[in-house]
Amino acid sequence: MSDDKRIPSRKDLLDIASLSVEEIEHLLKTAIPFKELFKRSVKKVPALRGKTVLNLFYEPSTRTSSSFEVAASRLSADVTNFTVSQSSVVKGESIIDTIDTLQAMRTDYIVIRHGAAGIPNLIAKHTRASVVNAGDGFHAHPTQALLDMFTLREVFPETSGKKVLIVGDILHSRVARSTSTILHKLGLQVGVLGPSTLVPPARHDFMRGFRTWDEAFAWQPDVVYLLRVQLERQGEPFFPSLGEYHRVYGLTTDRYRRLADEGTWLMHPGPVNRGVEIVDDAMTYERSLINQQVENGIAVRMAVLYWLLPDTELRNPKG
Amino acid sequence: MSDDKRIPSRKDLLDIASLSVEEIEHLLKTAIPFKELFKRSVKKVPALRGKTVLNLFYEPSTRTSSSFEVAASRLSADVTNFTVSQSSVVKGESIIDTIDTLQAMRTDYIVIRHGAAGIPNLIAKHTRASVVNAGDGFHAHPTQALLDMFTLREVFPETSGKKVLIVGDILHSRVARSTSTILHKLGLQVGVLGPSTLVPPARHDFMRGFRTWDEAFAWQPDVVYLLRVQLERQGEPFFPSLGEYHRVYGLTTDRYRRLADEGTWLMHPGPVNRGVEIVDDAMTYERSLINQQVENGIAVRMAVLYWLLPDTELRNPKG
Amino acid sequence: MSDDKRIPSRKDLLDIASLSVEEIEHLLKTAIPFKELFKRSVKKVPALRGKTVLNLFYEPSTRTSSSFEVAASRLSADVTNFTVSQSSVVKGESIIDTIDTLQAMRTDYIVIRHGAAGIPNLIAKHTRASVVNAGDGFHAHPTQALLDMFTLREVFPETSGKKVLIVGDILHSRVARSTSTILHKLGLQVGVLGPSTLVPPARHDFMRGFRTWDEAFAWQPDVVYLLRVQLERQGEPFFPSLGEYHRVYGLTTDRYRRLADEGTWLMHPGPVNRGVEIVDDAMTYERSLINQQVENGIAVRMAVLYWLLPDTELRNPKG
Repeated sequence: MSDDKRIPSRKDLLDIASLSVEEIEHLLKTAIPFKELFKRSVKKVPALRGKTVLNLFYEPSTRTSSSFEVAASRLSADVTNFTVSQSSVVKGESIIDTIDTLQAMRTDYIVIRHGAAGIPNLIAKHTRASVVNAGDGFHAHPTQALLDMFTLREVFPETSGKKVLIVGDILHSRVARSTSTILHKLGLQVGVLGPSTLVPPARHDFMRGFRTWDEAFAWQPDVVYLLRVQLERQGEPFFPSLGEYHRVYGLTTDRYRRLADEGTWLMHPGPVNRGVEIVDDAMTYERSLINQQVENGIAVRMAVLYWLLPDTELRNPKG
Repeated sequence: MSDDKRIPSRKDLLDIASLSVEEIEHLLKTAIPFKELFKRSVKKVPALRGKTVLNLFYEPSTRTSSSFEVAASRLSADVTNFTVSQSSVVKGESIIDTIDTLQAMRTDYIVIRHGAAGIPNLIAKHTRASVVNAGDGFHAHPTQALLDMFTLREVFPETSGKKVLIVGDILHSRVARSTSTILHKLGLQVGVLGPSTLVPPARHDFMRGFRTWDEAFAWQPDVVYLLRVQLERQGEPFFPSLGEYHRVYGLTTDRYRRLADEGTWLMHPGPVNRGVEIVDDAMTYERSLINQQVENGIAVRMAVLYWLLPDTELRNPKG
Repeated sequence: MSDDKRIPSRKDLLDIASLSVEEIEHLLKTAIPFKELFKRSVKKVPALRGKTVLNLFYEPSTRTSSSFEVAASRLSADVTNFTVSQSSVVKGESIIDTIDTLQAMRTDYIVIRHGAAGIPNLIAKHTRASVVNAGDGFHAHPTQALLDMFTLREVFPETSGKKVLIVGDILHSRVARSTSTILHKLGLQVGVLGPSTLVPPARHDFMRGFRTWDEAFAWQPDVVYLLRVQLERQGEPFFPSLGEYHRVYGLTTDRYRRLADEGTWLMHPGPVNRGVEIVDDAMTYERSLINQQVENGIAVRMAVLYWLLPDTELRNPKG
């Protein structure tokens, strides 16, 4: 889709930290024509015909899994879902042996989500397949960061210098980690609002911390990015109750009014816990980018899969 | 597949009630060449190449889900199964937000089954995608009605005036509701046998109620259509036990003999609870249409998906 | 892929016992070019375009299910996964009625795994579809046997006369049953090591029984084939504990050293229970064929699906 394929492709996409600005820009640029495809009657291109994508999800996420499935499918690749819960994991197969099995199946891509940080890197090191990290523990979620950045580029002609306020449990969020990294790399300003103990100290160099919504509003952010509260991860609560979270860090009716008055944009990785991160009314906010993020997710994932295809293959399409 | 595409297509198929007789006839006619495909070695046509179908089942039904999957696949569409139980629903995502997500994924079709009546209509109103109701609560199951009618047309050269006896819990059956509607629209006579409290009063105008099999046999039905007893929906029993149901409303050995003697045809939406709706012997009855219904289900669903494709696209196949 | 299609195809592959040596040799030969495909950029051929494969797994096995899915996909067939646990089986549908339903869907292939021996044969008898047994109870697992034999042919220029030692619960293993049968048919020698009560008496004619690893090593096997201990099948333990199994029948560190010293090859159907059948160190053994077995599984399953395609269809590719 891109004429100047002067940015060499990589084998894997494991995190944002290891990508250069040029590589990020290349991916964002490649995603544009893919998104334009969606307006056409036939949304499919033959770019990955004959390639096999293995969707390996150890944590449930229909949203991300389907997004990759549709992305691969629109590139004409074949997708096999390796549903792990009802499978060999039950039988006690270790992750190392699973990697060997996947390697032996010679799939071209492995899209992996896992509860433990570093598993995608481990798999990448041991297989010839191109590995895409679809979220690992508290570590990284690089395609989320790319789709967030792509969405900001659609809204702002010039993103450099723009202020993005991230709200929630920054410390335990792979979304916050990957997205704040891409924002910083591309010259945006990052503010964070959340319990002070939950903002990673190592990031204080480029993250500006706020303790209250009032402080944060005074900073005049261009975008408020609300993190998802992980309701299902019980056992590690960092606030007394969901009602308490909403009261202290949620986008309440009052805060929503203030946000709307100032024309601030609203983002969320989805799915939203209504009444927790966001009051119901705000779900129809005209400057909410939440659904745009979903659509851009497919375009960006197409760009990633396409980019990871080895140059040699692109040069020899007849294989 | 059809030469005279003078019946304009619709965006969605939500129920039988809102279809005109002409539209029903058009769908039944379109399904004929699709079924003929099944006898060929290659059962596939390129009609929906590049289209995406999202199979969204909130209630388990391998049978209907697979039928739609095979139908879409034989039209060369790409199918993504959105398995809801192990997904965002677990995370508390509301139906409205799910709709917005699906809309953002820009799939061309959404095939939806849901336990609550009206959800498909809600989705249809809020997405550009063509929505097909694959069963919602006690409301409707329009593709079941179409496949039932298609099956009757294969058996009877002239269906008008034919008598169909529906047996079971009419009130709580979306199959009964949709199928009785299509029968009535196309001029067949509908009789119902079941607990009197379970026949909807509003339908007494065209449904003839019977209290016993003897009364019903005296009516001389051409077809007996046995509804499935919903074993898994406990908590709302309308009869004391399955044995009791079989004794009072089931096709027992004696009733089966009488049915066979009179050459009456037998239908059931499947899967059958042997020994409850039907005695084992009757499963091999030569005038049973149960398996024909399954096969016709695929042909009819192909016709539905094909019909919902916008006319503009058919006129501009190059997109 | 094969020029001399003089070996007539069959309708089904149900076990190894009913295959002639010529048929086995034909399948092994056909798998060679399919495996060579895997080294190419596009690993796909159009051989089964337009065909439908139904993957019907009543027992969980991501490994075998995915292997068939990838195999079918590389032949350009469409695969529908009929996940049985969350489906009509829940509703009490009998196996006979399921067969009728599948028959009515007119899929070209049914790949079936079931906990009860004989179910694939029952299905094969009642459908026009080509049925492939992917494992039924303690009975058979023919594609496992074919991939094992294919793997041995890659290692040994001449397999006839080679000695294979199978270790574990021979009596309850469909792998042991199918693999020992193919080995015997093709002239290899089969030794078995396991509790004496667990070696089937009827097989004593061609299986040489050993009671201890020392006895077995004295036989000087060329290959040691470790069976998988079925951890999940509780209720029928034939040894006191997993630790005890490892001590008596497992490949312990000492036995692994002896195996490596003698250059013996190592096989296992996977997935391995580390620390039970095999000590961790042995997982990186250079003469382990375990991953090669996985890769060969796809090639052999492609050969099987291709072979079952009726000759008439191959002669009339335009269908």
